[in-house]
Amino acid sequence: MREAVRWAPERVRDLYVTDEAAERYAEFVEPAREQGRYVHTVSEEVLAAMCDAETPQGVAAVVDQAPTTLAEVLAGSPRLLVLLTHVRDPGNLGTVVRAADAAGADAVLVSAASVDLTSPKVVRSTAGSLFHLPVVTGLEIGATLAALSQAGVRSLAADGAGSRTIDESDLTAPHAWVMGNEAWGLPEEIRSACDEVLRVPIHGRAESLNLAMASTICLYASARVQRA
Amino acid sequence: MREAVRWAPERVRDLYVTDEAAERYAEFVEPAREQGRYVHTVSEEVLAAMCDAETPQGVAAVVDQAPTTLAEVLAGSPRLLVLLTHVRDPGNLGTVVRAADAAGADAVLVSAASVDLTSPKVVRSTAGSLFHLPVVTGLEIGATLAALSQAGVRSLAADGAGSRTIDESDLTAPHAWVMGNEAWGLPEEIRSACDEVLRVPIHGRAESLNLAMASTICLYASARVQRA
Repeated sequence: MREAVRWAPERVRDLYVTDEAAERYAEFVEPAREQGRYVHTVSEEVLAAMCDAETPQGVAAVVDQAPTTLAEVLAGSPRLLVLLTHVRDPGNLGTVVRAADAAGADAVLVSAASVDLTSPKVVRSTAGSLFHLPVVTGLEIGATLAALSQAGVRSLAADGAGSRTIDESDLTAPHAWVMGNEAWGLPEEIRSACDEVLRVPIHGRAESLNLAMASTICLYASARVQRA
Repeated sequence: MREAVRWAPERVRDLYVTDEAAERYAEFVEPAREQGRYVHTVSEEVLAAMCDAETPQGVAAVVDQAPTTLAEVLAGSPRLLVLLTHVRDPGNLGTVVRAADAAGADAVLVSAASVDLTSPKVVRSTAGSLFHLPVVTGLEIGATLAALSQAGVRSLAADGAGSRTIDESDLTAPHAWVMGNEAWGLPEEIRSACDEVLRVPIHGRAESLNLAMASTICLYASARVQRA
């Protein structure tokens, strides 16, 4: 909420707050009032009915979506992107958006047949990062890989099948990490359409990392090299 | 379950399986039978009543805990450890155990006043890694830092207050990452008792990373350097 008011105030339509929360979160409720947003005072019961959180924090907002297109992202000469294909778990999508933000990525790309970006669990698990960087949804994977290639952005499939590890490839040039579904990973046809297939090294006995962890490791490996 | 049978068979006391699961998981149910473990066939109703998972997978086991002491871990000349202080979320503890396993860490250390390692949600989120590396629980933090120091293991506090980033320190020598609580991080008295305070760099607008992500990044930064 605070991040929406701070970084995307033009998208905030209404704020609903309890008396107690208006005081506790004055740092962003007051600026929202000053910006002319509708700030409605509601009872705790009304707020609880509005939110599906188990422990609502006393404040809710109606925020416009910010539809961004792949073309707009590519027009900005991105250096670091992540493309999630068929991501199904809301916590994973939210966590990857947060990791991409932290790693300084330019945008997050999400394929069609993925979990809805606007679902409350996704929004919460981005911890505000949803309002920090563009997230493009509903993408067709083949067309996206072609557009990346056209724009000079290498597509790097992160998959255990990679013969080289993420640290053995050159991550300085612009690239997009392509991440698979939680259960079945990346199908062969997507892997072979990418410029390279790289694996996160597993040094112990773990069979794999989960999607959020693998994405975080890949994004930070890129940031380390690109910002060195 | 499979990981317990494979890597810690001496700790598996009983296996409870449905007929259907006995067939589906023959790869580890059969070895368990051959090893002389008690394999009980139960109905789906009984199994559901035994497990608290929303979608039980048709198999449950009673497994002995494997109490390991800090002294035993340090006697093995560890190069990479992680010490979780006051970790409260089961998913976080489980995910860090999995990340430590994947990064090839020697053990996971957990302070007193942390979530119970044997809670089902922790066990599940380790994805089998609980049976791959030692996890020492119930540790007093001050005494643990002293014992690490005595054993020549540097303690590196991972905290946003660090003046240097994790990539700016020398990670070749044996060390333990010291991670704080999800909500309040590392108190000043713990930070100052560590050899160094390092921060995970935040390149975008995200305020922070969650505990599991930060731990994963730190552990992989160490593995990259130590295994180069």
